Amino acid sequence: MELGNLQSVRKSIKVVDATLRDGGIVNNFYFTDEFAKALYAANLAAGVDYMEFGYKVSKKLFDVTKFGKWKFCEEDDIRSVVGENKTDMKISVMSDVGRVDLATEVLPKKESVIDLYRIATYVHQIPTAIEMIEFCNKMGYKTSCNIMAISKNQESDLKNALEEVGKSPVDIIYIVDSFGALYPEEIRRVADMYLEVGAKYGKEIGIHAHNNQQLAFANTIEACAKGVNFLDGTVCGMGRGAGNCFTESLLGFLKNPRYKMDPVLGFIREYMKPLSKTTAWGYDVPYLLTGLYNAHPYAAIDFLKAGRTDYEKFRREILGENEF
Amino acid sequence: MELGNLQSVRKSIKVVDATLRDGGIVNNFYFTDEFAKALYAANLAAGVDYMEFGYKVSKKLFDVTKFGKWKFCEEDDIRSVVGENKTDMKISVMSDVGRVDLATEVLPKKESVIDLYRIATYVHQIPTAIEMIEFCNKMGYKTSCNIMAISKNQESDLKNALEEVGKSPVDIIYIVDSFGALYPEEIRRVADMYLEVGAKYGKEIGIHAHNNQQLAFANTIEACAKGVNFLDGTVCGMGRGAGNCFTESLLGFLKNPRYKMDPVLGFIREYMKPLSKTTAWGYDVPYLLTGLYNAHPYAAIDFLKAGRTDYEKFRREILGENEF
Repeated sequence: MELGNLQSVRKSIKVVDATLRDGGIVNNFYFTDEFAKALYAANLAAGVDYMEFGYKVSKKLFDVTKFGKWKFCEEDDIRSVVGENKTDMKISVMSDVGRVDLATEVLPKKESVIDLYRIATYVHQIPTAIEMIEFCNKMGYKTSCNIMAISKNQESDLKNALEEVGKSPVDIIYIVDSFGALYPEEIRRVADMYLEVGAKYGKEIGIHAHNNQQLAFANTIEACAKGVNFLDGTVCGMGRGAGNCFTESLLGFLKNPRYKMDPVLGFIREYMKPLSKTTAWGYDVPYLLTGLYNAHPYAAIDFLKAGRTDYEKFRREILGENEF
Repeated sequence: MELGNLQSVRKSIKVVDATLRDGGIVNNFYFTDEFAKALYAANLAAGVDYMEFGYKVSKKLFDVTKFGKWKFCEEDDIRSVVGENKTDMKISVMSDVGRVDLATEVLPKKESVIDLYRIATYVHQIPTAIEMIEFCNKMGYKTSCNIMAISKNQESDLKNALEEVGKSPVDIIYIVDSFGALYPEEIRRVADMYLEVGAKYGKEIGIHAHNNQQLAFANTIEACAKGVNFLDGTVCGMGRGAGNCFTESLLGFLKNPRYKMDPVLGFIREYMKPLSKTTAWGYDVPYLLTGLYNAHPYAAIDFLKAGRTDYEKFRREILGENEF
């Protein structure tokens, strides 16, 4: 199969901007309405294919006074930004397994401007994820299955999971390097594994990378070169811990004339640079260490919040070397 | 040839820490003596194979009142840090083509603690670079030829240059992505080209990457996987513009028990974090743009120094679109 090269266009590629969703983890989703509207306008003008507005989780499970609206993605809140969204940019939300009341909180597609439900799951939750996928599919939505933290899984377990997901009505299966632990050569191997399942069951493959080792962009474009079509980014890489692949890097890299950098560059100046003065995300030493040792970034987030700089001790903590 | 894998050790790999040299470009080489001594101690304890102290350029060509000592790397200045350097860490300096008076400023090896002269050259200067290599070689030094800004060269010109350098007495030929313009798949192709010449003439290959597109570490380890053995890094990536591959990332990535992260992590806390409060380097939007469009980073450095944030206009400036 001819996949193209650095000078060609592959129209099956889709850029997914997840700034409000993964970036929302950084600031508990407290974005201003102006920010969300400006980001929507920028993504639209930039040719971004999907904009993810946030999580769709149940208000019964989380204290609504402790999170901004994009933790919950109520239909009216999305519509206050996008209206009827009569554009060619699709809208996605993410739901963690077990965190949304499907029967009461997922509207039929014809009543919603949401196009894509992305179901975030760990390998051990796959059967529940598939139930959610089946439900959302029946309600008329496109769905993806985002299998998180795969760097912690045995390859054989992951293969089993992929087979189960492959048999489901899901449209897209995502490679998610939650810990920013994987190197490009590992990502290429993982991409091959996913693409094989994708070819077998007619599914698209996506990638969501984290920047702990400053490999998010590299891993994303390496996966893309293999045939992975759904590419996640966030503006300025805003996302949990070390953050993500930068949307602006992707837009610059892709040669499809559909993609324009300027709208996002303007958004960076007007919104992201001011935000970055009060809100911290992105690469730092403790994230390198959790990525390197394949550990959840929460340890690094706590380390930085506590104002710690004893990197050496932290390194031993992650490795469990203090436990002997 | 078995090159190893992510779990194995390849003893021919050498880590070259160029913090004083490439980082010196950021602060005109005004490092404190304490900083240089602490970096030497950290690199030594970390198992770094080569530490580059700075440039060796002629004091006749540059105003000595405008640069710190590591712009010139006088023998006595290096010795004030390393003494006789009775260690297994080697010492390197870099000389730009035509910027050092060989006859008066390069001592015979037996009078110097310097081990390696790295000759930085553009493709069109190769014959002069080879004269310098021959001179340094005769004086008893190991030499490398660092061909800069190769993303601006035609492949055929670069191949010719590599053949000429291959016939010289040089020990190491470096891939230098001065503009941070190259993607991993390009780096792999370039690495193959260099490694072929290396195999033909018995030369080692090295890589010096820049982080404009946040690809410096990715490109370095991808080249390494191909067989490139000399890997440049700088602590916290300190270097011109967007900076370099991070030494600490390399030390974490490499599985040789020789390499220890803790000494460098301590150095980051004690020296790099304080320095970063007064001195700016590293990834930012304008560097992404010069990398993406294969332009010299000086435009981005000027842009940031001028306090500009009109990224869109800057993008058109780099592309020359204002010239029509």
